[in-house]
Amino acid sequence: MKKIAVLMGSDSDLPVVKAAFALFREYGVPYEAHVMSAHRSPEAVREFSAAARERGFGAIIAAAGKAAHLAGAVAANTTLPVIGIPVKSSTLDGLDALLATVQMPSGMPVATVAIDGAANAALLAVQMLSMEDAALASKLDAKRAAMRAQIAEKDARLQKELETL
Amino acid sequence: MKKIAVLMGSDSDLPVVKAAFALFREYGVPYEAHVMSAHRSPEAVREFSAAARERGFGAIIAAAGKAAHLAGAVAANTTLPVIGIPVKSSTLDGLDALLATVQMPSGMPVATVAIDGAANAALLAVQMLSMEDAALASKLDAKRAAMRAQIAEKDARLQKELETL
Amino acid sequence: MKKIAVLMGSDSDLPVVKAAFALFREYGVPYEAHVMSAHRSPEAVREFSAAARERGFGAIIAAAGKAAHLAGAVAANTTLPVIGIPVKSSTLDGLDALLATVQMPSGMPVATVAIDGAANAALLAVQMLSMEDAALASKLDAKRAAMRAQIAEKDARLQKELETL
Amino acid sequence: MKKIAVLMGSDSDLPVVKAAFALFREYGVPYEAHVMSAHRSPEAVREFSAAARERGFGAIIAAAGKAAHLAGAVAANTTLPVIGIPVKSSTLDGLDALLATVQMPSGMPVATVAIDGAANAALLAVQMLSMEDAALASKLDAKRAAMRAQIAEKDARLQKELETL
Amino acid sequence: MKKIAVLMGSDSDLPVVKAAFALFREYGVPYEAHVMSAHRSPEAVREFSAAARERGFGAIIAAAGKAAHLAGAVAANTTLPVIGIPVKSSTLDGLDALLATVQMPSGMPVATVAIDGAANAALLAVQMLSMEDAALASKLDAKRAAMRAQIAEKDARLQKELETL
Amino acid sequence: MKKIAVLMGSDSDLPVVKAAFALFREYGVPYEAHVMSAHRSPEAVREFSAAARERGFGAIIAAAGKAAHLAGAVAANTTLPVIGIPVKSSTLDGLDALLATVQMPSGMPVATVAIDGAANAALLAVQMLSMEDAALASKLDAKRAAMRAQIAEKDARLQKELETL
Amino acid sequence: MKKIAVLMGSDSDLPVVKAAFALFREYGVPYEAHVMSAHRSPEAVREFSAAARERGFGAIIAAAGKAAHLAGAVAANTTLPVIGIPVKSSTLDGLDALLATVQMPSGMPVATVAIDGAANAALLAVQMLSMEDAALASKLDAKRAAMRAQIAEKDARLQKELETL
Amino acid sequence: MKKIAVLMGSDSDLPVVKAAFALFREYGVPYEAHVMSAHRSPEAVREFSAAARERGFGAIIAAAGKAAHLAGAVAANTTLPVIGIPVKSSTLDGLDALLATVQMPSGMPVATVAIDGAANAALLAVQMLSMEDAALASKLDAKRAAMRAQIAEKDARLQKELETL
Repeated sequence: MKKIAVLMGSDSDLPVVKAAFALFREYGVPYEAHVMSAHRSPEAVREFSAAARERGFGAIIAAAGKAAHLAGAVAANTTLPVIGIPVKSSTLDGLDALLATVQMPSGMPVATVAIDGAANAALLAVQMLSMEDAALASKLDAKRAAMRAQIAEKDARLQKELETL
Repeated sequence: MKKIAVLMGSDSDLPVVKAAFALFREYGVPYEAHVMSAHRSPEAVREFSAAARERGFGAIIAAAGKAAHLAGAVAANTTLPVIGIPVKSSTLDGLDALLATVQMPSGMPVATVAIDGAANAALLAVQMLSMEDAALASKLDAKRAAMRAQIAEKDARLQKELETL
Repeated sequence: MKKIAVLMGSDSDLPVVKAAFALFREYGVPYEAHVMSAHRSPEAVREFSAAARERGFGAIIAAAGKAAHLAGAVAANTTLPVIGIPVKSSTLDGLDALLATVQMPSGMPVATVAIDGAANAALLAVQMLSMEDAALASKLDAKRAAMRAQIAEKDARLQKELETL
Repeated sequence: MKKIAVLMGSDSDLPVVKAAFALFREYGVPYEAHVMSAHRSPEAVREFSAAARERGFGAIIAAAGKAAHLAGAVAANTTLPVIGIPVKSSTLDGLDALLATVQMPSGMPVATVAIDGAANAALLAVQMLSMEDAALASKLDAKRAAMRAQIAEKDARLQKELETL
Repeated sequence: MKKIAVLMGSDSDLPVVKAAFALFREYGVPYEAHVMSAHRSPEAVREFSAAARERGFGAIIAAAGKAAHLAGAVAANTTLPVIGIPVKSSTLDGLDALLATVQMPSGMPVATVAIDGAANAALLAVQMLSMEDAALASKLDAKRAAMRAQIAEKDARLQKELETL
Repeated sequence: MKKIAVLMGSDSDLPVVKAAFALFREYGVPYEAHVMSAHRSPEAVREFSAAARERGFGAIIAAAGKAAHLAGAVAANTTLPVIGIPVKSSTLDGLDALLATVQMPSGMPVATVAIDGAANAALLAVQMLSMEDAALASKLDAKRAAMRAQIAEKDARLQKELETL
Repeated sequence: MKKIAVLMGSDSDLPVVKAAFALFREYGVPYEAHVMSAHRSPEAVREFSAAARERGFGAIIAAAGKAAHLAGAVAANTTLPVIGIPVKSSTLDGLDALLATVQMPSGMPVATVAIDGAANAALLAVQMLSMEDAALASKLDAKRAAMRAQIAEKDARLQKELETL
Repeated sequence: MKKIAVLMGSDSDLPVVKAAFALFREYGVPYEAHVMSAHRSPEAVREFSAAARERGFGAIIAAAGKAAHLAGAVAANTTLPVIGIPVKSSTLDGLDALLATVQMPSGMPVATVAIDGAANAALLAVQMLSMEDAALASKLDAKRAAMRAQIAEKDARLQKELETL
């Protein structure tokens, strides 16, 4: 199976990004994670991105805040799909990171997920892998069924709560 | 090769979405396109999405404006990767469609591209296909090289223009 | 009397939504509440919405955050009036949920109230019921008079406070 | 059948509001329309709103731009459901009117539709009337079926267009 | 001297509004304050505003949050200058109240100050009174000089702090 | 009667500002207008503002776009009331000018009107003058009555138009 | 004298950027301009930026729209001052480019000017050069005096226009 | 070496601004800091700015919140480069200060850094000084290398953390 790379612009993004690791372990998807910055270590980003396909990666996830350029810098150096996680920082509530991640120019897409949406970024990578992997597709479908059951259970619990009102 | 589906919420989105068709033909990627609405024909959306994987689709692109729910409605009914194109409408400059597309809840990612970014949506789908398709990967890399050459050419033209100032 | 349905996309919306239950009990309006998600349990939403009119509901309230599609998904499956409550989440201060709820396309209205405005959503439903129910109309008018009195009382208290300055 | 009132803050709102008139005629719903301003003719607004229920109105639609107070001023003087249409003006793309219409305080709901969404405002009023009017409900359902058919037709046309590419 | 009226839409605005009272006492300007709501007690607002000029008021300050209509409702019923204080509430950081207060239609100005800017609202009223009151003008000028001195003092303190670095 | 000063940061603001001149002539209020820039001619702004009160001005209106500092620069040099008109420019739809004008720090109010709201700025100045001028107050009241009549007339015209539908 | 580099992400930015060239010729400052993209030709950007200081450049101006990463990509590869021009594109009115340019992380400043503010970007570069160049400083001061005179002239013209009203 | 001036509009900005002092000491750059307000002490700002070049300053940093005019007021009185730090205050998350600082009119640039970006403002000033100071340039380059090393170290630490998962 292709590996997924998870890059974060700063180790302060780790609390947000960790949700992705958990999801990869749940689905049995191999991954690597690195602290790498579009601005502080641009060479590292370039080299990692340029070599990613031949090193067996299938997609690269990049998480960054503020003027979030990491996902775009990765996209500029690979033709693998790149997934961007805009990270909320101390001002502007994540709007800056969202726009800096999603509004990419023609020819350089970044698949952007919700602000701080690391679990969804990982899930999107798993969905990409599932395009050619029936076993993964089955796991994804099973998880959906479990989510439906969980919602039904929460609804049942609400009905009990309502009776006591 | 897996097919890509392109759904649009209204035929008024066609002028924006057409850029995706051109790109698929350029890369030789089979695609289907449909007018289908999360609100006006929810059954059609559900049925199409639920059957997409077994009908040979690898990813689904959904373009919609305003309270853009189409991509989300597709994502709710398939575990294939879903790509969302927020379409600018007559008010709010596309911000409504962007937020309604990208801010998906945990468990239901939509890979969102820039407002009106249909070419990038298609390119992202091609990149997903390229994960397991070396020929497509080569084409993508070749296109990148061409883009670099084109930029260099534009720079050369600028140098001439500057001489005449 | 018609019943009112209150749907919430997640049980984490319950603290916001509870204000609606209190109001229905105050006005003696029968209601049902359910946890149901446009994305995690779309079938449940579709079935509930499609059957709501014949099951004796007069209106459906839907509360959701982020890319808040629940109200729209309900509206797509019923011609009963649908009331949307945009719920504030951890980023963007509720603006995402507001735009995703209110900016519905032509043919599919969602009666949107203020961010986290569950009491007003319930009150709006009561007002709808009051169109053909003189007793409810009287209660609503009485409550208004009480509100006026309460404001006058608060003003009186302020006058006392000002004297002590 | 109850009548619906359509108020607009200025006759410059008429081009937007006209879509509501068309819809009422389509559904055979009696309506009255008036130019009335929360600021320029507050007495007229107050009198009209206060008497609306006993004059046979079932709901009041109010359209206004900028610091759009008309819907709120109506809501302050009636307990009938009030529907607000935020109208886009020359600056801020309708965001000012949207927030001024939807962010009502507790106790005073305004059922807000999309910016410039007059057709949806009228449709929402029809849906309210349909709560106790089976014939209207049938017409609404029939229109939905027609919308679905129309979308299917547009999709069929798109398929033909795609063949010629 | 003319009196200044201070109206607030809810007694929850009192903590913000109190800064205005302090300023009036500092300048020896007579004032009255009332809890009065554009929506919950529109008659009280109308009567107070309509009679304000002949009751000896020179200007009316109105503080309100969310869809902040109070200042506009006052302005609709008097030709005295009306000063609006947009009050920040639990969502949207005061932007809703700012736009609902400042974006008034032609013919109905509201002199809007910063979000939560009650002291400035009071100061603006004093400045208006100073147009025909030389003693007040002198007090205002003296306060400015004091502000300048205070800044200079703060700068002096900073210089000492810098020496210890 | 006190004079009103109208300052504009650039002669490109003249088309917006002219509405104020018309209003002053209508009310017989003496005024002066100047092109003066907080950034390009700060000395002129300072001198004009500092001398305005003793030169017989009652209030100063300042119109500027983008990082609109003119009103604030005037306010820093006079204790007369200062009225700010945020002017819409080629980007951001006037939001930059609105925030730069209204969000003044404590001690330095600027009475801000709507974006491009020159007529309202002038009207606000007239209202300030009316605090001590019964004749002006009467004119303002008469204009209000005329506005009411005009709205009623527009409503009458609408009724005719509706009959022909 | 150090040279100034002007980079633009696309030749479509040329109409905006040209204002910078004019200003450099006015001040006799040597400059080079290039089309170079953070995403389409990242190597070119890296090489140019890394070599800029030793090639005799004093500062680098970078203009880009949407998810405007060019200035940041330059800043990551040089310790020369980098000036960013956010360019308005077809959606979001330049807000995306502004936030993507200005919100740089600690350690990597980009000196950001107004949206589409190419003339100011060039002027800022000239001001930087003037820190050690008395002749340039004199030219800048002379231009300021000319601006003051021009404003005075425009004011004089306005006075004539006012007489004819 | 030229000195750098750091002005702040209020001593409440000191916690944000202090990061700049630390950086100047790190680079051995002489600096002065002052509390000075565009509105409360405009004369002080004007005099300081006008004399700054001949007093040996190379650049002026100005930090202010809300309708942040300080940087612009400095820029109006000197042709030295002016660096603006928008400071976040209690409402609007710093957006007001950002727009009021960056959107300067043609002819008056302010080099704007991120909201609360005091360290970057200082670093930008050091970069300006480095244009003609090879020793400073070397220090800047050395710091960059250190940053790269630090990122690599953080990545190494992450690898260890991942092993324990």
